[in-house]
Amino acid sequence: MDFLTPYKQIFDEHLQAIALDRQPRGLYDPIQYIMSLGGKRIRPLLMLMATEAVGSDMKLALDGAMAVELFHNFTLLHDDIMDDAPLRRGQQTVHEKYSVNTAILSGDAMMILAYQALGKYQRADVFEIFSKMAIEVCEGQQMDMDFEVRGDVTIPEYIEMIKLKTSVLIGAALQIGALLGGATAKGAQHLYEYGVNIGIAFQIQDDVLDTYGSPKVGKQKCGDIIQNKKTYLYLKALELSTEADKAELLSLYSHSPADPAAKIEEVLRVYKDANAKGYAEELKLVYKDLAISHLMAAGLSVSATESFKAFANYLLEREN
Amino acid sequence: MDFLTPYKQIFDEHLQAIALDRQPRGLYDPIQYIMSLGGKRIRPLLMLMATEAVGSDMKLALDGAMAVELFHNFTLLHDDIMDDAPLRRGQQTVHEKYSVNTAILSGDAMMILAYQALGKYQRADVFEIFSKMAIEVCEGQQMDMDFEVRGDVTIPEYIEMIKLKTSVLIGAALQIGALLGGATAKGAQHLYEYGVNIGIAFQIQDDVLDTYGSPKVGKQKCGDIIQNKKTYLYLKALELSTEADKAELLSLYSHSPADPAAKIEEVLRVYKDANAKGYAEELKLVYKDLAISHLMAAGLSVSATESFKAFANYLLEREN
Repeated sequence: MDFLTPYKQIFDEHLQAIALDRQPRGLYDPIQYIMSLGGKRIRPLLMLMATEAVGSDMKLALDGAMAVELFHNFTLLHDDIMDDAPLRRGQQTVHEKYSVNTAILSGDAMMILAYQALGKYQRADVFEIFSKMAIEVCEGQQMDMDFEVRGDVTIPEYIEMIKLKTSVLIGAALQIGALLGGATAKGAQHLYEYGVNIGIAFQIQDDVLDTYGSPKVGKQKCGDIIQNKKTYLYLKALELSTEADKAELLSLYSHSPADPAAKIEEVLRVYKDANAKGYAEELKLVYKDLAISHLMAAGLSVSATESFKAFANYLLEREN
Repeated sequence: MDFLTPYKQIFDEHLQAIALDRQPRGLYDPIQYIMSLGGKRIRPLLMLMATEAVGSDMKLALDGAMAVELFHNFTLLHDDIMDDAPLRRGQQTVHEKYSVNTAILSGDAMMILAYQALGKYQRADVFEIFSKMAIEVCEGQQMDMDFEVRGDVTIPEYIEMIKLKTSVLIGAALQIGALLGGATAKGAQHLYEYGVNIGIAFQIQDDVLDTYGSPKVGKQKCGDIIQNKKTYLYLKALELSTEADKAELLSLYSHSPADPAAKIEEVLRVYKDANAKGYAEELKLVYKDLAISHLMAAGLSVSATESFKAFANYLLEREN
């Protein structure tokens, strides 16, 4: 999106300047590798936008932006080990390219580098928000792993899991950016809520797109169904289906056939009869609206408010 | 040691009080487990001693002591995965008792909890010392892994590795404790150097005891030789042996026989002819003396100085 270009340029310059050309290379090479794979840089850009939105120079937030991007990429390194994922952004994951031990240790170092970047501000509020977010991300990841073996996951639990695992980081990026720019605690809190709700809406959309969108680079079509992943669609279909379809869905999700075509077709049929996609799209809009109402309450200028609205549309109108 | 009892009691009480009875249990159970396995609590006790040694109430340093103990145990969780170690303190390691994924994630959470504990002080100097130490520990672990596959490790590199991997944490514990108690930066720096040098001496002793001491609970006698670990003894023997013995040692260290008895016997013979143990014991004393000279320069009271001398003796006169 065009309106993001100036933020991205400034962040990318700052990223080039961080000193990762250090010894031992076995520790820092994988960090350079994962940081260079790109991605949309959503979290740092939102932080820079938030700082600017409250009337300050976005450069004030560059170290904070680095902290959230390093932290985000640390979680990718460790999550990819846990999920045994071969690809990240269409390239080999760190544990595949180097080794599991490397991915563990370089991830650890990235979290410390994130704290070092954040520590430059010496602000108690920023430090506490970041640490609370960081521990919640771990809690969300644990819930996600717990759900794999649980048969009684509820939709509120699922929403809580995606909130902790992915959305609080988006919220914290905005909140910290606003505080660094001089926002009131209350104004920054509204931007946090905007970010958390955008994040939840984005994850629900992600569930829908995995099943109904064009597959992303390096991803299988209907990967969630193939891997028996308990997504919003699955949980909603379980809730609303007839007893027969419910039993059918549970049975389909207890197998992993070599050729998944028939399984996918039947799961899609159950989803359709339960209107799972319709409910998901509706819930996504509920969270988007909630996000916008917090945005409106944040007391920003008209143009800043419009930028964050545009950002919400950019994230939430993805077709694949 | 009797003189440590009051510090240990106060730290153990504080440890009981930290809130690990949180959800999800899959994340916090392993943290409670590893923290309850005990150990000598060397790092937190040294921190409390340092705070008291500069004339302040040791309770000032309880959160810092928690931070270093959490950080230390985080490194144990992740190192045990990397080393594929089955036992820790005679009990199952976390990745054995739970799973590798659990050990990764609970370790991550412990590092965040450590930062949260440290963050209560809001002191730039303490935060920077801790973060510098933390990244150095990662660098030391990476060097240790690199050394496994390198054939040209030098003794200075080996000393640098053990300094980073284990000693800087002991140094930082003392330095932070002194600063929290109101020490000057210079006085605290001398305590840091005392700790680092004690730590290096301790690791050299550890190498000697693995080969010549009684095996610790859950450890094999001569485990380092069996696992082809490049210890100080090995590197010194390589340096000082005849060409024939050098070739012999390299050859012995390129195999892992099912029955290691003959290999151990021959490695010990090479060590003996090179007087590797004698050099190790001498170098241990060099570092101990260096530690004591920094201790004397730290400007502490006679009784505090005596306590730290007693601590050095306690750590460095271990027979097994």
